[in-house]
Amino acid sequence: MTRHYNFCAGPAALPVAVLERARDELLDYRGRGLSVMEMSHRSAEFNEIAERAERDLRDLLAIPDNYRVLFLQGGATLQFAMLPYNLLGQGGTPNYIDTGIWSKKAIDEAKRLFSAHIAASSRDNGLSAVPRPEAIALSDDAAYLHYTGNETIGGLEFDYIPELPEDVPLVCDLSSSILSRPLDVSRFGVIYAGAQKNIGPAGLTVVILRDDLLERGRADMPSLFSYQAMSEAGSMVNTPPTYAWYLAGLVFQWLKNEVGGLAAMADINRRKAQKLYRAIDESQLYSNPIDPVNRSWMNVPFVLAEERLNAGFLEQAEQAGLLNLKGHRSVGGMRASLYNAVPEEGVEALIGFMREFERKNA
Amino acid sequence: MTRHYNFCAGPAALPVAVLERARDELLDYRGRGLSVMEMSHRSAEFNEIAERAERDLRDLLAIPDNYRVLFLQGGATLQFAMLPYNLLGQGGTPNYIDTGIWSKKAIDEAKRLFSAHIAASSRDNGLSAVPRPEAIALSDDAAYLHYTGNETIGGLEFDYIPELPEDVPLVCDLSSSILSRPLDVSRFGVIYAGAQKNIGPAGLTVVILRDDLLERGRADMPSLFSYQAMSEAGSMVNTPPTYAWYLAGLVFQWLKNEVGGLAAMADINRRKAQKLYRAIDESQLYSNPIDPVNRSWMNVPFVLAEERLNAGFLEQAEQAGLLNLKGHRSVGGMRASLYNAVPEEGVEALIGFMREFERKNA
Repeated sequence: MTRHYNFCAGPAALPVAVLERARDELLDYRGRGLSVMEMSHRSAEFNEIAERAERDLRDLLAIPDNYRVLFLQGGATLQFAMLPYNLLGQGGTPNYIDTGIWSKKAIDEAKRLFSAHIAASSRDNGLSAVPRPEAIALSDDAAYLHYTGNETIGGLEFDYIPELPEDVPLVCDLSSSILSRPLDVSRFGVIYAGAQKNIGPAGLTVVILRDDLLERGRADMPSLFSYQAMSEAGSMVNTPPTYAWYLAGLVFQWLKNEVGGLAAMADINRRKAQKLYRAIDESQLYSNPIDPVNRSWMNVPFVLAEERLNAGFLEQAEQAGLLNLKGHRSVGGMRASLYNAVPEEGVEALIGFMREFERKNA
Repeated sequence: MTRHYNFCAGPAALPVAVLERARDELLDYRGRGLSVMEMSHRSAEFNEIAERAERDLRDLLAIPDNYRVLFLQGGATLQFAMLPYNLLGQGGTPNYIDTGIWSKKAIDEAKRLFSAHIAASSRDNGLSAVPRPEAIALSDDAAYLHYTGNETIGGLEFDYIPELPEDVPLVCDLSSSILSRPLDVSRFGVIYAGAQKNIGPAGLTVVILRDDLLERGRADMPSLFSYQAMSEAGSMVNTPPTYAWYLAGLVFQWLKNEVGGLAAMADINRRKAQKLYRAIDESQLYSNPIDPVNRSWMNVPFVLAEERLNAGFLEQAEQAGLLNLKGHRSVGGMRASLYNAVPEEGVEALIGFMREFERKNA
């Protein structure tokens, strides 16, 4: 068996211990005589798996009791539509902070279906820093403020949580940074995350929301969109993505039992990111354009000073077992995603390779 | 390792050969050094997996070239909303045939969002037979006619494909009977199926639609709802459920290469169903209320003459390694789902158990 270091932005690397456990249980879940993917979602066995996953996620993030946790489908992109349907039942204008490609997608979907006020934007600094708190200007009738905690493509991450008037819920897309460190959930109205970075395989979306917001849904939405209906049905208005939910649960157990929780995970992630950014900053060949205070821990985009070297860099990296370093097709260059499951040794191997590549191409 | 016979209605049994292959490739897909669930959906490796799955499905069902195949999320229940959004862009009234719980759910969702005309119903025969062709009365402005090919809970299956005027597309929910036998796809406008019965794990939905219908979408739908956008993006407007897609591909390969295609699968399925219905009809203890011409091949509901025997039946069946025979909570009794992955030996074991149980409780 071969295992390489996988720097993919998503679907992304999963912990080896999780994959091994899934492999060992694939045909027979703990003597029950069937695979988790063959279980009824209404069965006692699966309910135990589902509830354990929620409990572990609650423990990891210290989610307050007045918050619900939903396990949904459709990725963050479906949330871009579900959110306004669920939060605009009492009117008002959706407010957004624009920090790059993913926040723009959320804005465009809200505009297509309803409307959107841009409360702050990073466009005037070339998406190299997030707007400072004092630059956030809500509309008078703000129904909520949405921001993208970490721009997966731009590698731009918020260094603070916006403060809002009490009646304006804060909504955050944390797809690419959830579980990378501790989080004060009580500051948010809604947090959502596509699973395929730090949670599990693609096809699962986790939504965490304050329960008083369940009342704010519009009547005209598809029934599967309703957070309230999903909450009442334990995320089982219809058949949930059971196997992805199970794998997410294994990831949560790995974080709790093998990593030691999110504070320990944060220490590792901080070191991984610092080492790579330092290597980039110290080199003559590589560079990263983001304001140091907003540099993402999870997604590190960088460019080579000479574009002609790109193809060779990627080819030789792959030969060295360093996979998926190509930047997003919309921006080019390179990107190393350092999600929880990418081990520190993987980052060290990448840095070693980058130094060697620079030396050979000096 | 223990493997039991699993008669679950869904998520349902998967072929052992598929699970074994998935297990063997779980940590390292064919020497690439990563799991399929860790691959970028834009990677060459995953594209090969995705395209192969579509090609194999096209081969199995002999899907004509003017039909598109989509791999989506949200299950059949999300299709209940997506369908009218995609087919009502030119106005008209959605038409439905009501044959039970699942068709009723589709109708209710269409009514909630738009409207629905009931073109025919099985309510007056107690859901024991599907309406005959001559009973189908379309509204003047029918935008489409929707029916549920196989009612998973009721065990009621269409024995014919409705004939419609050329300008009215026929739409069919085939979640629980797709791939159980050959199908003339050219008779349909849209076919859709949640994966978790005959295709793969929960969290994937397959939609097959005639390409001229792509033009009929409404402007006001969430962008992920659009069949046209999904078709243009190869089902990757956003990250698809990659691992479920891969597993579906393994199931398609199993059907083609190990079973020998859908005609061979149909022979096996016909025998499985006939044997079980015969055993039920010959017994004094068990009965099934469905008109023989509409008895489902895939879902066989039956009741015991004495309700007090139910608990013992289920308990002893489970001890005999015959899992998930409890009927749906809305109707009670028993149900044996005989999807493709349930082997003929499993059905024989079930029949043997049922006869023995009847003898002991005579």
